Amino acid sequence: TTPPEQQVQVKNPHLDTMEEDILYHFSLGTKTHNLPEMFGDIKFVCVGGSANRMRAFAQFIHQELQLPGNSEEIRDICEGTDRYCMYKVGPVLSISHGMGVPSISIMLHELIKLLHHAHCRDVVLFRIGTSGGVGLAPGTVVISSKAVDHSFHPQFEQVVLGKVITRSTELDEGLANELLQYSTELQDLPTVIGNTMCTHDFYEGQGRLDGALCSFSPEEKLEYLRKAHEAGVRNIEMESTVFAAMCRVCAAVICVTLLNRFEGDQITTPHDVLVEYQQRPQVLVSHFIKKRLGLII
Amino acid sequence: TTPPEQQVQVKNPHLDTMEEDILYHFSLGTKTHNLPEMFGDIKFVCVGGSANRMRAFAQFIHQELQLPGNSEEIRDICEGTDRYCMYKVGPVLSISHGMGVPSISIMLHELIKLLHHAHCRDVVLFRIGTSGGVGLAPGTVVISSKAVDHSFHPQFEQVVLGKVITRSTELDEGLANELLQYSTELQDLPTVIGNTMCTHDFYEGQGRLDGALCSFSPEEKLEYLRKAHEAGVRNIEMESTVFAAMCRVCAAVICVTLLNRFEGDQITTPHDVLVEYQQRPQVLVSHFIKKRLGLII
Repeated sequence: TTPPEQQVQVKNPHLDTMEEDILYHFSLGTKTHNLPEMFGDIKFVCVGGSANRMRAFAQFIHQELQLPGNSEEIRDICEGTDRYCMYKVGPVLSISHGMGVPSISIMLHELIKLLHHAHCRDVVLFRIGTSGGVGLAPGTVVISSKAVDHSFHPQFEQVVLGKVITRSTELDEGLANELLQYSTELQDLPTVIGNTMCTHDFYEGQGRLDGALCSFSPEEKLEYLRKAHEAGVRNIEMESTVFAAMCRVCAAVICVTLLNRFEGDQITTPHDVLVEYQQRPQVLVSHFIKKRLGLII
Repeated sequence: TTPPEQQVQVKNPHLDTMEEDILYHFSLGTKTHNLPEMFGDIKFVCVGGSANRMRAFAQFIHQELQLPGNSEEIRDICEGTDRYCMYKVGPVLSISHGMGVPSISIMLHELIKLLHHAHCRDVVLFRIGTSGGVGLAPGTVVISSKAVDHSFHPQFEQVVLGKVITRSTELDEGLANELLQYSTELQDLPTVIGNTMCTHDFYEGQGRLDGALCSFSPEEKLEYLRKAHEAGVRNIEMESTVFAAMCRVCAAVICVTLLNRFEGDQITTPHDVLVEYQQRPQVLVSHFIKKRLGLII
């Protein structure tokens, strides 16, 4: 199937009047870099929290697409700054975004402007991340049907000049279904579609009992998680609402669960098992990219 | 003057019942590491967004305290993860926290538990960061009297099990005044005390006209900044409210301004000038530490 035409569009009338645009947190700019030449052929953008993981993903996709050159020698395009890492592998861009909504939000503003300045078209965006599971076995991959806030509503509250406005966090249903279909073609990739709750805190905000601060009981924690599960929440992470609000039409969120929050709060799974879990969203997205590029049928 | 007795206290009755505490985002734990031996002598904790900057600070303080060994060989204690970087130099701990409230909040939960497990006492915490100035010349250092939210109120909204609660973000007045006094003993360190506004977004949330999204006019932007200035706001960053809410009594926020937001939104200052600006909070905190340790009178 042919993907629908997707354009990356900035919604800011002031941008056209600027003589230069410095993408400060990427250490890139319209005067210092030829962005159309560097990025014009990008069709897939994959983002995730950890810099090491997004470098590993770039090396993995380099091998999967059988591109020439040594995948070990992939260069960080943002080496002028340590805020984010960015790797380009053929038509795939792999970027780290740190933890939490504000951190990914800065990256997305500059990414969307980058794709705009580079005249990119038909770009699909993926967030591949880690999460806590809600009633799922650890290692399950969750494709988000929508991102919801702490009250289980599909909305993102953005402050603009001191006033709170609300944006929708629905995601691309067709893209989610396509990914779920592809997951059945792969081994060891237990995958579900569900709602993803996005919080602004890892401890109190996600009902953990093991933070530096905790004022609630284990029973109150479980009641909150049960309510979340009833509302369709299958995993909890910290970036999906703003990712959905800013990217929407051509975007998917694919996170593996590292633990089942009904069973505990601490991540006690051995390191090598966690490493394998974290590769699962990468394998699924790689499969999707190869399908779209016609490398597999 | 003798500092008041300060203890790092966790407020979580569940922690004592845990057999092991894994500080996941530090890649440290109570069973795998001897935390009292590793960290028991810590008296000063300095945190900042950028990993490179906090490594540079660790090397700088190593030289300033004239400690033995090669400051180039300082090891990242959190090398098992790329979420944060951590360096220990004598009684000083230097940690990166990424960008935004959620990112620093995860770090602070695990830091406070770390200091608790290590039985640390009389610890002073500093956030040394960068910020946008409001009506100040670029390069000015702002010591925060208090951290305020987007409505200029000294409060931090925390979601706990889906309910919003409010915490105070007042900071240690004595510590701020002591720092301001020390700044007068140093050259090229223009310093003021003022309110620091903490936002959850770098672009729309801070009234920038140069993001991927912008729905307001230059006049509306300036009106918001003028109101902030009238409310005592002298700089804008993205971490101070939760830092103040979680650390408070023994904590200070010291940020240099990289630009004057009344003059523009983009950071166009040359790289070497920015590097010098970013050293200013480090120089001030180093001076404070040397005073407290009796290395200078």
